[in-house]
Amino acid sequence: MSKQHIVSALVENRAGTLSRVSGLFSRRGFNIDSLTVGETEDPSISRLTIAVQRGGAEIEQVVKQLGKLVDVIAVRELDKGACIRRGIMLVKVGADEKTRPNVIQVAGIFRARIIDVSATTVTIEATGDAEKLEGLLLLLRPYGIMELARTGLTALERGSKTLTQ
Amino acid sequence: MSKQHIVSALVENRAGTLSRVSGLFSRRGFNIDSLTVGETEDPSISRLTIAVQRGGAEIEQVVKQLGKLVDVIAVRELDKGACIRRGIMLVKVGADEKTRPNVIQVAGIFRARIIDVSATTVTIEATGDAEKLEGLLLLLRPYGIMELARTGLTALERGSKTLTQ
Repeated sequence: MSKQHIVSALVENRAGTLSRVSGLFSRRGFNIDSLTVGETEDPSISRLTIAVQRGGAEIEQVVKQLGKLVDVIAVRELDKGACIRRGIMLVKVGADEKTRPNVIQVAGIFRARIIDVSATTVTIEATGDAEKLEGLLLLLRPYGIMELARTGLTALERGSKTLTQ
Repeated sequence: MSKQHIVSALVENRAGTLSRVSGLFSRRGFNIDSLTVGETEDPSISRLTIAVQRGGAEIEQVVKQLGKLVDVIAVRELDKGACIRRGIMLVKVGADEKTRPNVIQVAGIFRARIIDVSATTVTIEATGDAEKLEGLLLLLRPYGIMELARTGLTALERGSKTLTQ
């Protein structure tokens, strides 16, 4: 997970853009670890964040090709050392009245929030980078992971720098 | 934003799946508000969460077609009333030593976290549904939104129910 490379792009918010961008990765046999897309302050522009395992010359090539797509306004591989990366994870864990306190305690250690409780389950919301979320899952696994939904990572560079600068 | 419909799918984690799924939406002229994808407990299976504006018969048709794709294991529109939806937003706001305390206070009201500070900016991490995140942005806008990255929504149904049941 620590080897993930992050590509960030500003794209026109049009039907088909996402499919063109993800198609460019898949045609080169790149498996995308995670992809997130959300509106920016300008509703006509979305920001895409793509996490992949492969880096170096291969990713440079893909970034160059992305830059040529008509829908892509700006694109860059973010500097690993200078970027904040966050994802959100919702996880439904098996828990009865006996094990529930333990599950809640584990969540607390990771500053995760309990968002739903049923007689047989606890649902937890946690945010962080890939390593932190994996760390939480490791401790929750013995209780039984019933269901797991995560967003993949979004990312911004530290300081006052922006993608279009 | 409150009119968003959520489609949740379990898919084979293969190069090309994402492009096939998003292509199915774009071919029907569906603009995707947000799309998130992340690994489940089985690394060969990913969970996709797609938020769109259009519902009713139109979305039912798309869900039906998604179900026919060979990569799709399970797919359903989630019940609005019974699902937890969460996204994460990173926002870089203009703030000098004079306005910084106000920005930090606004973040506090929304239980958002300060994750980076520079001489001219504050970067904030917030989680919630689309409405909550919009509410925070509304209060931050006067300070100047320098950069905005969000994941789009991921979602799970409340209680012990799962997508494959």
